[in-house]
Amino acid sequence: MEDEKITQAEYDARLANVQKILKQKDLDVLVVFGSESEPQNLIYLANYWPAFETGAVVIPREGPAALVIGPESKTFAEDSGVLHNIFQILEHRESSEPNYPNQNLPSYGDVFRFISGGRKPKRIGISGMAIIAYPVYDAITRSADGADIVRADEILIDLRMKKSANEVRLLKRSSEITFKAFEAALKNVRPGMEEVEVSSYILGEMFKNRAENVAYTPFVLSGNRTNQAISRASHKIIQANEPIQFSFGCKYKGYASSIGRPLCIGRMSKKYRELVEVGIGAQERVISSLKPGIQAKEVFKKYWQYLEAKGFTNYFLYGPCHGTGIMECEHPFLEENSSYNLEEGMTFQVDIFLGDQALGLRFEDGVIITDKGAEPFNSEYRKVIEL
Amino acid sequence: MEDEKITQAEYDARLANVQKILKQKDLDVLVVFGSESEPQNLIYLANYWPAFETGAVVIPREGPAALVIGPESKTFAEDSGVLHNIFQILEHRESSEPNYPNQNLPSYGDVFRFISGGRKPKRIGISGMAIIAYPVYDAITRSADGADIVRADEILIDLRMKKSANEVRLLKRSSEITFKAFEAALKNVRPGMEEVEVSSYILGEMFKNRAENVAYTPFVLSGNRTNQAISRASHKIIQANEPIQFSFGCKYKGYASSIGRPLCIGRMSKKYRELVEVGIGAQERVISSLKPGIQAKEVFKKYWQYLEAKGFTNYFLYGPCHGTGIMECEHPFLEENSSYNLEEGMTFQVDIFLGDQALGLRFEDGVIITDKGAEPFNSEYRKVIEL
Repeated sequence: MEDEKITQAEYDARLANVQKILKQKDLDVLVVFGSESEPQNLIYLANYWPAFETGAVVIPREGPAALVIGPESKTFAEDSGVLHNIFQILEHRESSEPNYPNQNLPSYGDVFRFISGGRKPKRIGISGMAIIAYPVYDAITRSADGADIVRADEILIDLRMKKSANEVRLLKRSSEITFKAFEAALKNVRPGMEEVEVSSYILGEMFKNRAENVAYTPFVLSGNRTNQAISRASHKIIQANEPIQFSFGCKYKGYASSIGRPLCIGRMSKKYRELVEVGIGAQERVISSLKPGIQAKEVFKKYWQYLEAKGFTNYFLYGPCHGTGIMECEHPFLEENSSYNLEEGMTFQVDIFLGDQALGLRFEDGVIITDKGAEPFNSEYRKVIEL
Repeated sequence: MEDEKITQAEYDARLANVQKILKQKDLDVLVVFGSESEPQNLIYLANYWPAFETGAVVIPREGPAALVIGPESKTFAEDSGVLHNIFQILEHRESSEPNYPNQNLPSYGDVFRFISGGRKPKRIGISGMAIIAYPVYDAITRSADGADIVRADEILIDLRMKKSANEVRLLKRSSEITFKAFEAALKNVRPGMEEVEVSSYILGEMFKNRAENVAYTPFVLSGNRTNQAISRASHKIIQANEPIQFSFGCKYKGYASSIGRPLCIGRMSKKYRELVEVGIGAQERVISSLKPGIQAKEVFKKYWQYLEAKGFTNYFLYGPCHGTGIMECEHPFLEENSSYNLEEGMTFQVDIFLGDQALGLRFEDGVIITDKGAEPFNSEYRKVIEL
C-alpha cells in the first residue's frame, strides 16, 4: 500500500494550478494560513499539519513556494518533504507566546522578497480568512509595503472541491478504517460506561489500522445529549434503553472520513425509533437525489419535502450534505440557496442531523458523485440498531 | 471521585476575579476568544470546549457573563452548564462557512447591549489576541460603536498562573492517566510497527481511564525524527536499536498532563546514550532549582551552565520549563530573560528538549511549586530505557 499517497507530481500540479489562477486574478502572492485544528490547505499544498504552532504556504506567481512555520517546527517541517524553502516567523508561535531571546527570525517582508526574487508584490491574496489568527494577519499587512491585501479563499476552495483518483483512494481507505472503529465501538459499548470510555475502543481500533489522527474528537452521546449537533464524548454514564449517538471518523494520510449512527443498548423507545426511521429515509432520499449536472439546491428541496411529509421540519438544523476531503467538513455546504451544480468527482458527507430539545440523531456517510449518481463509501448499519 | 471537578463556586470566583480587574483597568467589557485547538480560557470561564466552531466569553464589568458560540453548538453549549446567556454569532461558524439561510442571528452589538444593560461600552478588552480569528476580531470592531479596543491578555494569564487545590487534584489525576498510557506504550511497542500504531495503545489506555481527550496528538518519533521538538506520530516504521521518543499526554476534566521519555528497543548507541544521560542530568538539575521566591531566569542560568559544562549548548532550542494547566503548554515560559518570580501553586512542565539535525530527545514531567521546592507529578523512568 506504499502507493497510497499523494505523489510529489500531484503536489507540483496543485501548486501550478494555484499559480495559473494567481495570474488570472492578477495576484502577485498568495498567503495560505493554517493551524492545528484548521490545517486543510497546508496539508493540500505542503503535506504539513502544524502542531502547537500555526503555519502558512506563501506562493508567488511563478517559481517555488515557501513554507512558513513557527520557531520550533523546523525539523518537523523539513520532514514533511514537499516544500524546501522554510521560514520561521515569530507570529506563528504557539499561543503561550514564548519569546525566543537571541533568535533572529525573519519577517513576512523577507519571505515576500525571497519568493518574488526581490520584486515588490502589488496585490497579495489571503486564503484562510475565516481562520487566520489576527497577529499573523497583522504581520502580513505590516510587511505588505503598500500592496493591496485581498481575500482570496475561493482559489483553494475551488481547486479542492473535485477529488483526484489518489484522493478518492485515500478517502475510501480512511472510511474503511472508520468503519472498523465503528464495529469495535458497537462490540464494546456497555451500560455503566462513561461516554469517553467508548472512545478507547474507537481510537484504539483507528490507530491500530494506521490512522494518523481523528477527523474530530469522537462524539459518543447518550440520552438527551443526542440532540447535540456538535459535541464530544463526556463523563456521562451510558444507560440501557436510552438513545446513543455515535459520530466519529479518522484521518488517513491526510484524508478524513466519518460515520454517524444512532443506536440503543436494549429497546428503543417508540418515539426514538420513529425519529431513527425518518433519519434513514432522509439519508436514503438524499443519496438517491445526488446526481452530476443538477443544481445542489434541488437536493435540498427533496430533503425538505421529505421532512415536511413526515412532519419533522422542526428537527432541522442545517442542510443534508457538506463537502469532505482533507477536513471532515469542508466546502461546499448544501443548503436551500446552493446554486452550484453537482459534478463528478465531488465528495460529500451526507450528514442528516435531526434534533429537538430532548432528542437527536445523525446518520452520516461519505459519498462520491459519479456519472451514475452518489456512490457511498459505506452503507452498512443504515437501520434501527438495538444491541 | 465525583468531587473531582471545578465547582460552580469556583467558576463564579473566577468571573468575580476578572470583573475586579476590569474595574481596575477601567474596561467595560472583556471578550475572551477560544477555538477547538486553543480552548483554554473558555474552559476556564465556562467549562466550554468548542468543536468545529469557535467561541467567546463576553464579560461585563458587573453582572452575568455571556457565552458566544457558532450557529450549531446551542444544545452542546447549554450542556456545559456554567453560563446561561448564550448567543449564536455567524462569525464563530466553522471554517467551511455554512451560511444558514433564514437563521436570524445576533451581532456582537446585541451581546454588548444585553450584558451591559443597554449602557454603551467605552473600552473593550480582548483576551486571546494571539489566536483570535480575523473575522471575529472584525465583527467585534464593527460592533464596538466607537469604543476603544485594547489587548487584555494579561488578565487571564495572571489569574490562571497559580492553581487552586481543585486544579492541582485534576492535574495530578491527569498525570496518573498519562503515566498508565506510557506504561501501555512501553509494553506494546515493537520493531516493525508504524509510529501511529503505538498511539493505539496510548489512546486506548487514556480513554479507558476516562481521559476526555489528548493534551496533544501523541509524538511517537523514531530514528532521526527524534530531533523534532514539535511533531506527531507518522507512518515511519520503527526499527530495533534506533532512538525512539515518546511524548504525549491527556486531558482530564479540562486539565492537561504530559510525559516525555526517550528509549530504545534493544541497545542504545553510545552517542544517544550520552545525550540521554545529559537530558536526565538537565531535568534533575532544573527540578532541584525550582523554588518559590527566586527569579525564573536563575533557573535558566543553572540549566545553561549545565549544558555548557557538558558541551551540549548546540542542542538547545528553548528554555527548560513552561507553564501547564488547562493547556499542556501555557504561560509563563522560562527563558534567560524571564524576570518573574516563582511562587507556590505555579505548575510547570519541566520540558528538556535537546536536539541537533540527526538526533534529539525530550524529558518532560509536570511539577508544582510548593514551599519546599518542585514536587513532580511523576518521577518514574527518569533513566536509560532499553526494552
